[in-house]
Amino acid sequence: MTPKISSSPFNNAVEQLASLPGIGNKTALRLVLQVLNRNQQEIEAFGKAFIELSNEIQYCNSCHNISDTTKCDLCASPIRNDNVICVVENILDVIAIERTNQFQGKFHVLGGIISPMEGIGPNDIKIPELIERINSVKPTEIIMALSTTMEGDATNFYIYKKLSHLDINVTTIARGVGIGDEIEYTDELTLGRSLLNRIPFKNTLVLK
Amino acid sequence: MTPKISSSPFNNAVEQLASLPGIGNKTALRLVLQVLNRNQQEIEAFGKAFIELSNEIQYCNSCHNISDTTKCDLCASPIRNDNVICVVENILDVIAIERTNQFQGKFHVLGGIISPMEGIGPNDIKIPELIERINSVKPTEIIMALSTTMEGDATNFYIYKKLSHLDINVTTIARGVGIGDEIEYTDELTLGRSLLNRIPFKNTLVLK
Repeated sequence: MTPKISSSPFNNAVEQLASLPGIGNKTALRLVLQVLNRNQQEIEAFGKAFIELSNEIQYCNSCHNISDTTKCDLCASPIRNDNVICVVENILDVIAIERTNQFQGKFHVLGGIISPMEGIGPNDIKIPELIERINSVKPTEIIMALSTTMEGDATNFYIYKKLSHLDINVTTIARGVGIGDEIEYTDELTLGRSLLNRIPFKNTLVLK
Repeated sequence: MTPKISSSPFNNAVEQLASLPGIGNKTALRLVLQVLNRNQQEIEAFGKAFIELSNEIQYCNSCHNISDTTKCDLCASPIRNDNVICVVENILDVIAIERTNQFQGKFHVLGGIISPMEGIGPNDIKIPELIERINSVKPTEIIMALSTTMEGDATNFYIYKKLSHLDINVTTIARGVGIGDEIEYTDELTLGRSLLNRIPFKNTLVLK
């Protein structure tokens, strides 16, 4: 039991920070004390950043990525290929894929994955918008780049079914032994998948 | 190099969270995404907590602890002993000491320690207020409970010197082998100190 500090602004700030995942009560306490060492303008700026976040955040109308405008830089780019749409869960995945420099198509950010356990259905994320977008843009390929969790697989399958009547190539990113990983330490599911989905050796030579 | 998201409210919020100690850029990004899953009122409440922190935080006039009123609960308590003042660095130390149930005196929260490296001198923390308080309250004992770092030792010594002309008992909390620690793994400085400052065995029997 931690003795309570009798200051509601202090306790509120601690509570808010402790509401973030991975930040416990003691860490939150430390962080608020650190914030209190700043001057008033700086502390206010900290708070204002989140008020602005709540009021001013916008999403791209096309890919639903976070953006300052209704069309994000990636969607507005004239050099990116409209015919390939990569479906991801969130903005972190966009960043990770962009970092590879191996993808020059467009993204579609679902903003979550189907999770019956958490009460997230297909209409709670940007799946209807994806279907609508595919119907209007008519891309040739949809790359599914979701995590290989039960929820990711369910989302993959749901979208695949929804698109099955269309003449569209639905692919998924390759699962296999990571670059630099040792075969003997790779789990059998991944290793099995990498054997099943083996590719012609010469294909690996064209990759940068 | 992380590709930049073109959203200033998003980037500002990430930057503010990443300014907290121990929170890197990637963690901040994740946390802001998590915050964005909340509804607008909740995100606003998060921000408002820090604006209120900057505007409404108050400190106890006597011990300089964070408080809702100008006299904190600990200072206002009629059962606590005015004759003993325990000097600590910050509120976390107050919480830690309160949790022991071994101290029934008053506190004095310095709000930092003397650190020439960081440009913190005696007048940047509540040392002048401590001297003034001692002169007016005339306690019989001052317990120094600062960390045993170079800065803590410097602060201890500075305060000790400042009080040397007064008829006051300046003590410091015992340093020694922690309860449950094994002798063989205790560092030699701590073990040496615990030998030098040994106490009559019977004294340990009165402790709860």
